Amino acid sequence: MTIFNAFDFISLIDLLGTFAFAVSGIKLASRQRMDWFGAYIIGLVTAIGGGTVRDVLLDTDLFWIEDPTYLTTTAVALVTAIIFNKRLFRLGRTLFIFDTIGLGLFTVVGIEKSLEVGLPFWACIGMGAVTGSVGGVIRDILINEVPLLFRQDIYALACIAGGLVYFGLFQLNCSPMVIGLISAFTVIFIRLVAVKYHIHLPTLKTMGEE
Amino acid sequence: MTIFNAFDFISLIDLLGTFAFAVSGIKLASRQRMDWFGAYIIGLVTAIGGGTVRDVLLDTDLFWIEDPTYLTTTAVALVTAIIFNKRLFRLGRTLFIFDTIGLGLFTVVGIEKSLEVGLPFWACIGMGAVTGSVGGVIRDILINEVPLLFRQDIYALACIAGGLVYFGLFQLNCSPMVIGLISAFTVIFIRLVAVKYHIHLPTLKTMGEE
Amino acid sequence: MTIFNAFDFISLIDLLGTFAFAVSGIKLASRQRMDWFGAYIIGLVTAIGGGTVRDVLLDTDLFWIEDPTYLTTTAVALVTAIIFNKRLFRLGRTLFIFDTIGLGLFTVVGIEKSLEVGLPFWACIGMGAVTGSVGGVIRDILINEVPLLFRQDIYALACIAGGLVYFGLFQLNCSPMVIGLISAFTVIFIRLVAVKYHIHLPTLKTMGEE
Repeated sequence: MTIFNAFDFISLIDLLGTFAFAVSGIKLASRQRMDWFGAYIIGLVTAIGGGTVRDVLLDTDLFWIEDPTYLTTTAVALVTAIIFNKRLFRLGRTLFIFDTIGLGLFTVVGIEKSLEVGLPFWACIGMGAVTGSVGGVIRDILINEVPLLFRQDIYALACIAGGLVYFGLFQLNCSPMVIGLISAFTVIFIRLVAVKYHIHLPTLKTMGEE
Repeated sequence: MTIFNAFDFISLIDLLGTFAFAVSGIKLASRQRMDWFGAYIIGLVTAIGGGTVRDVLLDTDLFWIEDPTYLTTTAVALVTAIIFNKRLFRLGRTLFIFDTIGLGLFTVVGIEKSLEVGLPFWACIGMGAVTGSVGGVIRDILINEVPLLFRQDIYALACIAGGLVYFGLFQLNCSPMVIGLISAFTVIFIRLVAVKYHIHLPTLKTMGEE
Repeated sequence: MTIFNAFDFISLIDLLGTFAFAVSGIKLASRQRMDWFGAYIIGLVTAIGGGTVRDVLLDTDLFWIEDPTYLTTTAVALVTAIIFNKRLFRLGRTLFIFDTIGLGLFTVVGIEKSLEVGLPFWACIGMGAVTGSVGGVIRDILINEVPLLFRQDIYALACIAGGLVYFGLFQLNCSPMVIGLISAFTVIFIRLVAVKYHIHLPTLKTMGEE
């Protein structure tokens, strides 16, 4: 695969991941009987929220500020949702795969952007998890629910596991491409396995009233 | 009108808009039976939240950080609300006019600040809408309701329409004053018409449970 | 007390305050039956959220980005909560003291960081209150409740009173150490007295339906 193709491939994953993230937001918005504009904004925030918070925390330029692709991809997601509605929903499994692949990619992008800024490795791992999961948290705040993240933990934990693998391979001097691919794959693998086998962390026992 | 008067005029609109935004926050806080301090903070966040998020995203100085006017205007709004209470509420139509004029002004200010930073035009339009509407979104999150924005769409759409008019006139090389005035007027006009005739976008059909 | 010891003392208060803030988040998370990871994140956000928002608004480096102490302290808080559970809760009064002392310290740190950036004094006072109280606000948003801050006002008002004392002493040319200590003590004293004697601001009367 030439470098040109590698870039194409990453852009394609980025697009599919953005699309899947946006659809997850639009779907939740539809349950709240929001109008088209509200659904668009919820979809957009789900897709770009994590990277935006990361860029604000890193004090770097917003990744979408020169590139309208994310806005148009979200618009395509909305139009698809309006036209196909329940048929789009029946693609649940396919969207879940896109979403999970996007999660892997977004995590690696978040780690690499943090490395460039010179953060220590544990902060890079945190920023990878922020990139992957904060969009969904903002989505849940906007539709006024307790964020799913705090109940469906493996999501962000998969990002953290991918981050640990990243820095393990980094120590071993692997090539950037190899590190990125294996880390993203780790995120994807852990999430798929966790969802398939209903693996989750224990619940914290109630500590009583105040 | 001399430049001096123009500035005075804009400052006056800014004050009235800030006052109306703050009152909208304080009114919602009063329904939650908040105390004076809580109501003040909700009012302040409604008034300055949109511009603050814009300035954080643009990575520019916060517009209120050298100018206590916004804090004092919110304080005046709170005192007015405490003293006049329901009589202030009966001014609903007047406050709505202030609020809408403020929305037009805030949108134009948001676009112009983004232009100065060198953003592409579609991002400037987005920042105009952020400036006008995100304060209300944060207000609704704080009082734990699904943001009105996602149900009462024409609010942010009016900002976007005003932004499109802005860049249309910009292409035609109109003077900055003319561009600003007509764009702000567009926002105001669309919102007034949409509210008067109950115009709204279609609701997205529920896409089913997951 | 030598300077070395003074630093040690401040670090110790910082640790205890962080621990108490984290526990307050973890306790609320436990009532929502969150899992361990969710509880950890809520605890962490409660502990570092105020300072993070302050640093984003000031456009300075995030205070925790080079120092993993806050992450590990929150981890210790979580492990303690898992192991001791209700026995930790029975320490309510002790935790309250830690939390209040932490509030005093965080407020002063927020004011001093803002002074360094050159903000006017009223903005420094605001940033002190942001540092002390915004973590709890984000915590309450994440667990989907109306922030306690808006009902339990004396919390943020104590920060503001401490800030006023800070600038009063600043005018009198007191030494930085004295200013810091007395201001922090003011915050602590006001909060303790307000809680003990159930002092609170009046509630705003409902301003009617729209």
